[in-house]
Amino acid sequence: MYLLDEPHLAGGCTDGHLPAPRCARVTLVGAGPGDPDLLTVRAMKVLQGASLVLYDHLVSKDVLKYVPGHADLIYVGKESSRHTLPQDEIIELMVRLARGGRAVVRLKGGDGYIFGRGGEEALALARAGVPFDVVPGLSAAQGAGASVGIPLTHRDHSQALVFVTGHRQRDDEIDLDWTMLARPRQTVVIYMGVANLKRICERLIAHGLAPDTPAAVIERATLPGERCVTGSVRTLPSLAIVHDVKPPALVVIGEVVGLQPELAAAAARSAER
Amino acid sequence: MYLLDEPHLAGGCTDGHLPAPRCARVTLVGAGPGDPDLLTVRAMKVLQGASLVLYDHLVSKDVLKYVPGHADLIYVGKESSRHTLPQDEIIELMVRLARGGRAVVRLKGGDGYIFGRGGEEALALARAGVPFDVVPGLSAAQGAGASVGIPLTHRDHSQALVFVTGHRQRDDEIDLDWTMLARPRQTVVIYMGVANLKRICERLIAHGLAPDTPAAVIERATLPGERCVTGSVRTLPSLAIVHDVKPPALVVIGEVVGLQPELAAAAARSAER
Repeated sequence: MYLLDEPHLAGGCTDGHLPAPRCARVTLVGAGPGDPDLLTVRAMKVLQGASLVLYDHLVSKDVLKYVPGHADLIYVGKESSRHTLPQDEIIELMVRLARGGRAVVRLKGGDGYIFGRGGEEALALARAGVPFDVVPGLSAAQGAGASVGIPLTHRDHSQALVFVTGHRQRDDEIDLDWTMLARPRQTVVIYMGVANLKRICERLIAHGLAPDTPAAVIERATLPGERCVTGSVRTLPSLAIVHDVKPPALVVIGEVVGLQPELAAAAARSAER
Repeated sequence: MYLLDEPHLAGGCTDGHLPAPRCARVTLVGAGPGDPDLLTVRAMKVLQGASLVLYDHLVSKDVLKYVPGHADLIYVGKESSRHTLPQDEIIELMVRLARGGRAVVRLKGGDGYIFGRGGEEALALARAGVPFDVVPGLSAAQGAGASVGIPLTHRDHSQALVFVTGHRQRDDEIDLDWTMLARPRQTVVIYMGVANLKRICERLIAHGLAPDTPAAVIERATLPGERCVTGSVRTLPSLAIVHDVKPPALVVIGEVVGLQPELAAAAARSAER
């Protein structure tokens, strides 16, 4: 709503019922997990036709190769320690550009509607009267599961799939529903959880999750240099330190992770053929 | 494992370390939510190069247009009432075809690793020594969220995203972790839940979910004729009857659904431009 109150942003399209001819469109595009072949066909087409792209920290460079050479690329990557201000600024920038007649492609890692703040940006655009579209993308967990050999669900092992983010709001304690996450027979995916992995695993065990529950951390899923470290909820924090796992990385917890060694071995044999 | 014990299936590639030249590859491909533009680029390429495709009930006809005219298309769609036998037969068929030298594309709706039995098929292929690859796909919830205007997460409304299936195993009662699903501040997506919608909503309310929690059912997400009916956990079952909602449909429950009317109205205005 604050956008409507800012005089310097007032443009021809604050009222969606009376569109101003100059106001251009914003397309919110999910860039997927990193491998450019894992973009959707629509996302690829949007990038190929782009003249201005605002992209995030987690968008892989390979994905940007679809963007024509003459297009303007603006990096608006958020660093982890200061989120609030840049997010407002990104929205302001999009609105200002669209009102100035520049069609904007807003490119986010993964799926913008899954921990991507796409909802916040879409609402801000709606309230500013800027026309927009949303193109979904594969979330990192989907790319990681297919790539390293972790089916995210399996009838014998997991009846629910849970996505959460392990990122702290400011410097507070991680605020997650530990009781819910410690339930058995589900797969839990934790985005941005590496920095807080020890605390996360401790909490899960304290809330009743079996310490030998299989767990994995996947670094740079679907990208060159991808690594998958598997262990249990008890052992994973120290394994992640030993293997020097760094963000971007994804944590997957649940019995399905126990299938990974067999599937990865088969995939390795498959790749030799 | 049963595959290894069946003499008529014994072929040249039961031992992954000694590959037989004749054994071909199986590619498990997620077909996404329905709109062919929401396939991944890799999935599109695999379909364009396919000579034999086994496809499921939930794969949209539009997606099959990528398959060359000379390719063999085999429908292996499972009807909801008899799952167990066909699944075994599908796996047997894939193994038999691959061992006979036919490269197989196994096409599933959504993402094969999210309630798609892709994990079961990948394990069976691994154990039969058949080389395989997995191409992830957008899950129906992702297509639906972007298309009808429901961000699956939002910092102000939802700190977790939960996927479950509302499909009953045989004729038993639906066996879900109601306590977990009734938690506040999360988004719950229920696949194949329309037939049991009344029971699902009753159970959630009985386990403490606020009856006025926003809820939606989306029919034919991303396909022609897509419909979204919104209400609350209390009202949705009767609304679904009034609007004659039919499978395939997806149920989404949580505060984020409350954003849908505003986002859908803005999208409708956007479409007019």
